[in-house]
Amino acid sequence: MGETYAKAGVSLESGARATRLIGELARTTLRPEVLSGVGPFGGLFQLGRYREPVLVSSIDGVGTKLIIARTLDRYDTVGVDIVNHCVNDIFTCGAEPLFFLDYIGVGRLVPERVASIVAGMAKACREVGCALIGGETAEMPDIYTGDDYDLVGSIIGVVEKADIINGKTITVGDVIIGLPSSGLHTNGYSLVRKIFSSERLNDIHTEPERTLGEVLLEPHRCYFNQLKPLLPLIKGMAHITGGGLVGNVPRVLPENTAAHFKAGSWDIPPIFHLIQREGEVAEAEMYRVFNMGIGMVVICAPENATRITKTLSEAKVIGEVIKHKGEARVVIK
Amino acid sequence: MGETYAKAGVSLESGARATRLIGELARTTLRPEVLSGVGPFGGLFQLGRYREPVLVSSIDGVGTKLIIARTLDRYDTVGVDIVNHCVNDIFTCGAEPLFFLDYIGVGRLVPERVASIVAGMAKACREVGCALIGGETAEMPDIYTGDDYDLVGSIIGVVEKADIINGKTITVGDVIIGLPSSGLHTNGYSLVRKIFSSERLNDIHTEPERTLGEVLLEPHRCYFNQLKPLLPLIKGMAHITGGGLVGNVPRVLPENTAAHFKAGSWDIPPIFHLIQREGEVAEAEMYRVFNMGIGMVVICAPENATRITKTLSEAKVIGEVIKHKGEARVVIK
Repeated sequence: MGETYAKAGVSLESGARATRLIGELARTTLRPEVLSGVGPFGGLFQLGRYREPVLVSSIDGVGTKLIIARTLDRYDTVGVDIVNHCVNDIFTCGAEPLFFLDYIGVGRLVPERVASIVAGMAKACREVGCALIGGETAEMPDIYTGDDYDLVGSIIGVVEKADIINGKTITVGDVIIGLPSSGLHTNGYSLVRKIFSSERLNDIHTEPERTLGEVLLEPHRCYFNQLKPLLPLIKGMAHITGGGLVGNVPRVLPENTAAHFKAGSWDIPPIFHLIQREGEVAEAEMYRVFNMGIGMVVICAPENATRITKTLSEAKVIGEVIKHKGEARVVIK
Repeated sequence: MGETYAKAGVSLESGARATRLIGELARTTLRPEVLSGVGPFGGLFQLGRYREPVLVSSIDGVGTKLIIARTLDRYDTVGVDIVNHCVNDIFTCGAEPLFFLDYIGVGRLVPERVASIVAGMAKACREVGCALIGGETAEMPDIYTGDDYDLVGSIIGVVEKADIINGKTITVGDVIIGLPSSGLHTNGYSLVRKIFSSERLNDIHTEPERTLGEVLLEPHRCYFNQLKPLLPLIKGMAHITGGGLVGNVPRVLPENTAAHFKAGSWDIPPIFHLIQREGEVAEAEMYRVFNMGIGMVVICAPENATRITKTLSEAKVIGEVIKHKGEARVVIK
C-alpha cells in the first residue's frame, strides 16, 4: 500500500466539509460590491466611487486567548475578537471596513469547530457591514500539536484622503476621552494564563454568576458603529491593544505633547484587580500589558468633548493632552 | 516578586527588535502610494486612478514546507514562497499586486530568524512592485512548541472591472498552456515529509550538486512579470496549488467543458518521480496532491497559442479544452 495525503494526516474530505460550512457563513456577510463569494483563487470587491480613496489595512491574531477558548471548548467568541480587533485598528484613522480575510491553522481539522470560529467572524462582520471575502484553513499536524490552532485576520477598509484622522492637529489642552473595554480584549493572556491555572476558569468571578473563564473570553468590543457619526469631532484615536494606554496613546500624539490620564476618572473592572492581586503584578506592568478598562481613546478639542460624552453615555473624559517635558509620554496620576 | 509579561514567555524587547528589523526591510518595498510605512494601527495605500477598480484579495500560508526550512535552518525562502503564492493567486483574474501583509506566529521570537523570513518577503515584493505594508509577529509559547512557527500572507491587488479574467469565454478547442513550476511550490509537504525522514534532506538529489532539502526548499515561482504583457491573449488562468491540475484547472472552466492534458507533453521533474517511487504513491494521487511540474496553466484561443509560446520559451502546449461528457473534468492521457 502506497502513501496518500490522508495517511500523512491531511484530510481533504474534512477540508471540503469545512469549506462548505465556511462558504454558507461567509455568504451571510456579502455586500453588493462583492463580485464573487469565497472565489476560486481570490476575492473580488468592486470599490465604490471615491474622490481620493486610501485603502487602510491591518493583519492580526487573537493571541493566547485562543487557549482559553480551547480549554472551555467554545470557539465562536474568538471569531468576534479577531474581526473587532481589526475593525478598530483601521478605524483609528477614520476608515470604514470593506472586507475581511481569515486564516485558521489547526493540528486537526474539526469542521464544526472551524465553522464555529467563522460563525463568530461572520456575525461581527455583519455588524459593521464588512464582507468576509476569503479565507484559508490549513491542517498541519506537525506544526500545531493536537487541538492547538491559530487564528489570523486581515482587513481592508477605505477612507477619503481628506478625511484621514492622524492626530496631527492634536494640541496641548485637548481632551482625552475613554471608551470602556469589555474585558481584556485580546491582550495579556499569556500573563493571565500564568497566574490562573486552567482549573480556575470555572471559578465564579462576578455577580450575576459569571465564571472567570467567561469573563476572560468576553469578546473584544467594536467601536466603529458608535464612533463613526462622531468622526468630524475627533482629532485622533488610539486602539488600546498590547502595550496598554502607555504604549498606544503616544502613537497618535504629535511631538512635544504627552497624555495625562487622571487616575480614578474611570472604573477599572474587577478582572484587572483580580489579576493584579493574584499575580502580584506591579501597577506599571498592569498598565503596560492590559487595557485596564479602556478599549479606545478618542482625542478632541475641548469644545467638542461634551457633544461626544453626551452622545455616548459610556464615554468618559479621562485625561488631557499636556506639554511633553522630556520624561514619559504618558502620565497616570 | 510579582508576575511580568517577560516571565510569562513574552519578550517585548525581542518584539521591539524584530519590529525594527522588519521596518527596515519593509521600507525597501514602499511605493509612492503608501502614505505611512508599517503604520501605527494600519497601513495606508492611496489607490491610483481607475475607471472601475475591483480589489482582488487572498490570504494563505506556506504549509509544512515551513518544517523543511526549520530543519535546514534557512528561513529566507519561505518568505519568497508566501508572497509568490499570493501574487499568483490574485493574478489568475488579471489583478496586479498593490500591497501585502504578513503574520508570523512563533513559539520563541528570534528576531534575526523573523528578519530572514521578512527579507525573503521584501525581495519577492520588490520583484513585482508590491508594498509590504503591514504585519504582525506573535510570540506564543503555548501555541507553538519551541521553534515551531507559522507564516501567513495576505495580498491586495487591483484590476479594472472590464479587464477581469474569469474563464467565461473559454470554449471547446481552446489551447491549454503550461508554465513550469520550480519544484513543489507550497503543496504536498506533509506527504513528502512522511516519505523522507529529515536525515534524508542532506542526500544529494540532482546534478549539479543539490541536496534533497535544497530541491524541496526551492521557492514558489511567480508568474506575474512574464505573463502580465500577455494578458490580452489569455482567457483563463489556474494557479496549480493544493489539488494539482485535477483540482485547480476545473475552477476556471465553464460548465460543459473539461481539460484534456496530453501525458508526456511536458517534463515531470525528477523530484516528483523520486517521491512517487519512494512513497509508492499512486499516479492519480500524485496528480491530486502535486503540481507535477506545472505551476500555472493559461488557457487561450488556438490562434493566440503560438504568440504565447514564442514569447515565453518555457511555456508549452500541454492540452486542450474538450466537451465535458459526464465523467472527470480533467483527463490526463
